[in-house]
Amino acid sequence: LDAGSEEQACSRQSQLTKPAGSLGRLEEIAVQFAGITGNALPVVQQRAVVVMAADHGVTAEGVSAYPKDVTPQMVLNFLAGGAAINVLARQANAVVTVVDIGVAADLQHPQLLSRKVRYGTANMAQEPAMSQQEALQAIKVGVDIVESLAARGVDLIATGEMGIGNTTAASALTACLLNVPAEQVTGRGTGIDDQQLAHKVRIIERAIAHNHPDIDRPLDVLAKIGGLEIAGLVGVILAAAARRIPVVLDGFISSAAGLVAYALCPAVKGYLLAGHVSVERGHRLILEKLGLEPLLNLQLRLGEGTGAVLAMHIIEGALRTHLEMSTFADAGVSDKIE
Amino acid sequence: LDAGSEEQACSRQSQLTKPAGSLGRLEEIAVQFAGITGNALPVVQQRAVVVMAADHGVTAEGVSAYPKDVTPQMVLNFLAGGAAINVLARQANAVVTVVDIGVAADLQHPQLLSRKVRYGTANMAQEPAMSQQEALQAIKVGVDIVESLAARGVDLIATGEMGIGNTTAASALTACLLNVPAEQVTGRGTGIDDQQLAHKVRIIERAIAHNHPDIDRPLDVLAKIGGLEIAGLVGVILAAAARRIPVVLDGFISSAAGLVAYALCPAVKGYLLAGHVSVERGHRLILEKLGLEPLLNLQLRLGEGTGAVLAMHIIEGALRTHLEMSTFADAGVSDKIE
Repeated sequence: LDAGSEEQACSRQSQLTKPAGSLGRLEEIAVQFAGITGNALPVVQQRAVVVMAADHGVTAEGVSAYPKDVTPQMVLNFLAGGAAINVLARQANAVVTVVDIGVAADLQHPQLLSRKVRYGTANMAQEPAMSQQEALQAIKVGVDIVESLAARGVDLIATGEMGIGNTTAASALTACLLNVPAEQVTGRGTGIDDQQLAHKVRIIERAIAHNHPDIDRPLDVLAKIGGLEIAGLVGVILAAAARRIPVVLDGFISSAAGLVAYALCPAVKGYLLAGHVSVERGHRLILEKLGLEPLLNLQLRLGEGTGAVLAMHIIEGALRTHLEMSTFADAGVSDKIE
Repeated sequence: LDAGSEEQACSRQSQLTKPAGSLGRLEEIAVQFAGITGNALPVVQQRAVVVMAADHGVTAEGVSAYPKDVTPQMVLNFLAGGAAINVLARQANAVVTVVDIGVAADLQHPQLLSRKVRYGTANMAQEPAMSQQEALQAIKVGVDIVESLAARGVDLIATGEMGIGNTTAASALTACLLNVPAEQVTGRGTGIDDQQLAHKVRIIERAIAHNHPDIDRPLDVLAKIGGLEIAGLVGVILAAAARRIPVVLDGFISSAAGLVAYALCPAVKGYLLAGHVSVERGHRLILEKLGLEPLLNLQLRLGEGTGAVLAMHIIEGALRTHLEMSTFADAGVSDKIE
């Protein structure tokens, strides 16, 4: 992060025609973007949301309210432009990149990025979700996608995902990496009842106990109890930070990827923004760990990147006020009485 | 509010390709707009923000961190397009209507709506801020503006204001109408220190004690301890609700106008949205009274309509997902396992 650009941005904020600090979080965002990009007057030219889709073997344990067929069905819905993320991305002028990184079905579509690592993870309640090599391969997919987006001029990336069963993986990762009981970070996902929730917690406990992931080796944790789309997003986050592209995290699953990326490389933290805070109970704990304050709290629990893309409007407002507002001197407005 | 359209909107939400309820507040907004407009598929065609500017005689008591000259200076800044509200309104594609409803200076500009009721209010610490007739006249200004905006096709209105000293008036109104001690609803406005804050509280207490506004007659309260821009916004709110146009309240001052409008006509409540919750401590109490959950919490304390206009992006996201998303049937996506 470029401290000089941050300072210049702070100084500009204090000259704009408003009481100091009165734009709150918007001012912080402008300064953060200055630090990330090394430009005291940061702009965003091209937004993208990367939607990684994959299946989860753990759905065999009955942890989700929806059948696993919904993963490929929703991928086709993304490609047809009919899902919430499509609508919100059109509104935010963000390109949607849909990636099959591990759907347990054969999918073909001209707009689909087919980078399948395997046909869904294994059932982590019985064996490791994937090998470390597969996890690395999935991370590499995320890295490649950022390279390609950056080459097309993308300078703001939102994370998104689809995968029936993936709140189970995200809860397992969060419980393990934050070292808290599974029940503290396990929620209702797409909408399970109390009994199903208790069952989901037990499955997560069993997956952790059975695989005994090594908390000091984040890649081991990711492989044993993670997911392919989560691994892909880890790659997106690491590569974007390396290229000084800010990343807007979406909800619980995206933020679990953020947590893994942070465990691998704590410096990524400064390149992240939390688009929103989800209803999923583990999400807030991750954000606290990462030191991120969510931009929105709209009781969302859909994923896909929806909250992150909605937050892009707030980010744009932050950068535009920073860039376009008049200064006290230019506008002939009196400053505070001292 | 049209219960039939609300029901149709709820039914549509349950068919869209997402877990029921997973779009949280966005779903609620779509249903609220259906009820307000009587259209189960509500759309917004033309947004506007009404920025009412006026001065406050109570600034003579030293309640603000800024000199009162800043009111006309900022009005000129609005007209030149250099203030935060201009930038955010451009982003949100909202028309900015700047109204001189009581600035204590002569202002002329082709884009300025000159509807001055008087040259600022009187010092409410010593006498009533204005007469009831003046308050009514100011309300009428707001009504007229909504008529004119509606004639131009505006179907979503944000409230905004500018007036050095107006957090003092808003706090006085809030303390009186909520029947709470002034110190509970008095904040730092543009940025006063502890000592100045204590002084501000005393001035508000004196204004209420001296004028003894009749809490059962909201117009009496508004006239004695309110402000001209606040009265104007009361008119905007009442007229918009009457025309079934949703109103997005901005911060503390706008919401104080909302509180007065609610006291005059409780039915307006259903037509209001809270764009955000301000740092000003009285704001949350007003929102609780009105039963409104803020859409944003970005630590804003600028006013002008900034938070309300930022919230328009969330509203647009709500209406667009409601309108444009595919249904389970259309997209061939399986619904929840029952």
